[in-house]
Amino acid sequence: MYRPEIKVLDCTIRDGGLMNDWQFDYELVKDVYDGVVRAGADYIELGYRVDKKMFSPDDFGPWRFCSDDDIRKVTYESDTKISVMCDIGRTDYDDFRPADESPVSLFRIATYVKDIDKAIHLGKHIKSFGYELSINIMAISHALEPDLDEALDELAQTDFDYVYLVDSFGYLYSEQIHYLAEKYLAKLPGKTIGIHCHNNQQLAFANTIEGIIKGINYLDGSIFGIGRAAGNCPLELLMGFLKNPKFDIRPIFDLIEKYFIALKKELRWGYETPYAITGILNKHPRAAMAFLKGVHGNTFSEFYDELLNVDDI
Amino acid sequence: MYRPEIKVLDCTIRDGGLMNDWQFDYELVKDVYDGVVRAGADYIELGYRVDKKMFSPDDFGPWRFCSDDDIRKVTYESDTKISVMCDIGRTDYDDFRPADESPVSLFRIATYVKDIDKAIHLGKHIKSFGYELSINIMAISHALEPDLDEALDELAQTDFDYVYLVDSFGYLYSEQIHYLAEKYLAKLPGKTIGIHCHNNQQLAFANTIEGIIKGINYLDGSIFGIGRAAGNCPLELLMGFLKNPKFDIRPIFDLIEKYFIALKKELRWGYETPYAITGILNKHPRAAMAFLKGVHGNTFSEFYDELLNVDDI
Repeated sequence: MYRPEIKVLDCTIRDGGLMNDWQFDYELVKDVYDGVVRAGADYIELGYRVDKKMFSPDDFGPWRFCSDDDIRKVTYESDTKISVMCDIGRTDYDDFRPADESPVSLFRIATYVKDIDKAIHLGKHIKSFGYELSINIMAISHALEPDLDEALDELAQTDFDYVYLVDSFGYLYSEQIHYLAEKYLAKLPGKTIGIHCHNNQQLAFANTIEGIIKGINYLDGSIFGIGRAAGNCPLELLMGFLKNPKFDIRPIFDLIEKYFIALKKELRWGYETPYAITGILNKHPRAAMAFLKGVHGNTFSEFYDELLNVDDI
Repeated sequence: MYRPEIKVLDCTIRDGGLMNDWQFDYELVKDVYDGVVRAGADYIELGYRVDKKMFSPDDFGPWRFCSDDDIRKVTYESDTKISVMCDIGRTDYDDFRPADESPVSLFRIATYVKDIDKAIHLGKHIKSFGYELSINIMAISHALEPDLDEALDELAQTDFDYVYLVDSFGYLYSEQIHYLAEKYLAKLPGKTIGIHCHNNQQLAFANTIEGIIKGINYLDGSIFGIGRAAGNCPLELLMGFLKNPKFDIRPIFDLIEKYFIALKKELRWGYETPYAITGILNKHPRAAMAFLKGVHGNTFSEFYDELLNVDDI
């Protein structure tokens, strides 16, 4: 699949940090940045920028905060743009300076449908500094259709650059991705649509392909699929699929070998039955993460029945 | 997805046996059979029936040979039919008795396109004993289109029951599955089409869904995805997706917990970078299995370049 408009965003450190409170040391992040640049990815997302008054740097690694200074320690001038994610209600409005004084090119705001007005408010603020801006609507498999429609209609009125379709729970399969991709594209003329998938049912790469087929052009991937719970679309598979000659998969293989095989054993993302269960049942993975830590105890079948019998979790 | 014609075939022991020379003990196979029956699968494939003059029972477990007597030791009367696979050139024509004297209901012949005439010859022989018969055409991602067309045309002339689309190398993605499924269905009117996928690029479950969407009704899965190299479509995901009320996913979860988490650590199937590389490059996984045993040594990137520079392997 070669389409020049397609851009790849590596979210290794940002989504992977959900598994270790962003405690990646500078050396690793530097190596990841360098490998992702050499692999030809268009963006690399290095973490979240959350309010330091709400979260203490004593409890979290630097990529929870993504100060411009920390980003400068691990990056250099390159064609790979730097992205940082912001959460609704966890962002200090005073934490931004003009884009031309910052190494960051893109801010992505993660929001639920219900918080779309807050996301638009924050987005306008950040965009006023000259950054590219994306709204990533999470957990759409839980959204009511009219609410999602209204959110997309509101976003259509903004000058934001990108809107992401996010399958937070790893619940969706191809026909649902097609339906949503068509909706996003129809409701957001002139905007670029992105896709960010989770791998609970081993469908993250497949669903990303389905997004491409439908005209989605911004694609998230992470090295060896690292990310919360079952993780994300593996960047190496995505680059193996895309035929754009600018991509070179080898630096990603090298990073897998150097860091991510060992990290996976330690942080334990990827396909596991409890994550599959939350994916099958369209539930937040936090229940599965708690189960794996022994909070729920007992068997997979009991965990499955427990989730079947709750409205939401 | 609920379509009454859909049948699920569990190939845990047969395809999983490729990773341990079918050295599953009777107790495990008995438990797997019982769990698969309680889960409501339509078929369970317990192994291969190969010629004992060619392979010694000293070197392989009983499921390499699948004698009726061994099958009877681990099964009972149930609605789940028993399947056994045969290989071209490794089958003793004298190894079959009338179907009504055997616990086996279905024989599946694994063949390459080039061996289709041998497969039809063997198929007619086996079918004459009263068994259901399937031809599983392997490695179609390496087949030349006119050869595949000719093979399907020949199969259309037989009274065989099923023809399987098999992505042996885990190379295909949705659009290719659609194309092939449409071809099989068009060329084989009156026959039921099946699909058997490998998971090198984490597409086995996704491609099985794509087969369902296109009208394929016989679906292979294995517990926790066990199978050669990257393994197969995980049965638990397939049963989670199918809405037929006859399926119960819980006995599969129980088997994963009791056996397959530990087995996976020992036998090492599933997503690993060398398997992803052979999948991306449309190569036989044996190169990746050799790499993982240290035969090729060196790095993933070197392995990738090595495979890029061979015509076939």
